[in-house]
Amino acid sequence: MKIQLISVGKVHEPYMGAGIEDFTARIGKYFPVAWQIIAPPKNAAAMDDKELKKQEAKLILQNLGNDDQLILLDERGKQLSSTELAQFIQQRANESSKRLVFLIGGAYGVDETITKRANFTWSLSKLVFPHMLVRLILAEQLYRACTILRNEKYHHQ
Amino acid sequence: MKIQLISVGKVHEPYMGAGIEDFTARIGKYFPVAWQIIAPPKNAAAMDDKELKKQEAKLILQNLGNDDQLILLDERGKQLSSTELAQFIQQRANESSKRLVFLIGGAYGVDETITKRANFTWSLSKLVFPHMLVRLILAEQLYRACTILRNEKYHHQ
Repeated sequence: MKIQLISVGKVHEPYMGAGIEDFTARIGKYFPVAWQIIAPPKNAAAMDDKELKKQEAKLILQNLGNDDQLILLDERGKQLSSTELAQFIQQRANESSKRLVFLIGGAYGVDETITKRANFTWSLSKLVFPHMLVRLILAEQLYRACTILRNEKYHHQ
Repeated sequence: MKIQLISVGKVHEPYMGAGIEDFTARIGKYFPVAWQIIAPPKNAAAMDDKELKKQEAKLILQNLGNDDQLILLDERGKQLSSTELAQFIQQRANESSKRLVFLIGGAYGVDETITKRANFTWSLSKLVFPHMLVRLILAEQLYRACTILRNEKYHHQ
């Protein structure tokens, strides 16, 4: 199973990027993993929120395959503990999912075509985080989940 | 009101440190703010979890004043939305608290002398984060709370 991380927005900011890249490289020892950063539409500043989300949704859907398991990160979703996340990933692997896609939407969230397409909506927290921090948290939690599944020492509680 | 951020552990890791320092400097435009990093006891490796937490508790209590409002970060606490955090801080300021202390415990949590001393126990998420990431999240959320209280543009939802 491949893990694909999709984020709508800018390339990783340098000072968060080091952490994001570090944890992503560590995930790579357990699953093939890659980031895809989708740039917002060119005339985004001229669009209202709704139109922007619609245009972003088109770009996102172009990058999804029919078989992809899509996990949307959204604070209105369901929270998981780190252990539950590990189990969730294991279940997807057991169901022979080919690609598990984690999606971080744009600045104003995502269009309903995406919320409908999502197989699961995951909330990291009741808190709202900036996108770069969501990327870092996502990469760290996926790495942590991998170590939990292998009973490795990183996670203790 | 001063904001004091206390963490038991190592100095900021370089690649998280830049983000932590950046957000802390931004908080400084709203409240006097400072980090205090408490090094674990010298023979920590030789102690069991319980003894370690007990020794860490002593070091923490030495750094607290009687009037300090102590907010303990612990995943067994209560979650707040970013807006609720802002209101929480405003309330403490309204009650003329002199110092609002946010405490990130050691690797195995904190001794019960600390959980009893805490005026509030705050959970960032159901997820377990590494300490350096907790520091970054804490600094970012406090900055975000400041902008919410001043109705500034950083937070939108």
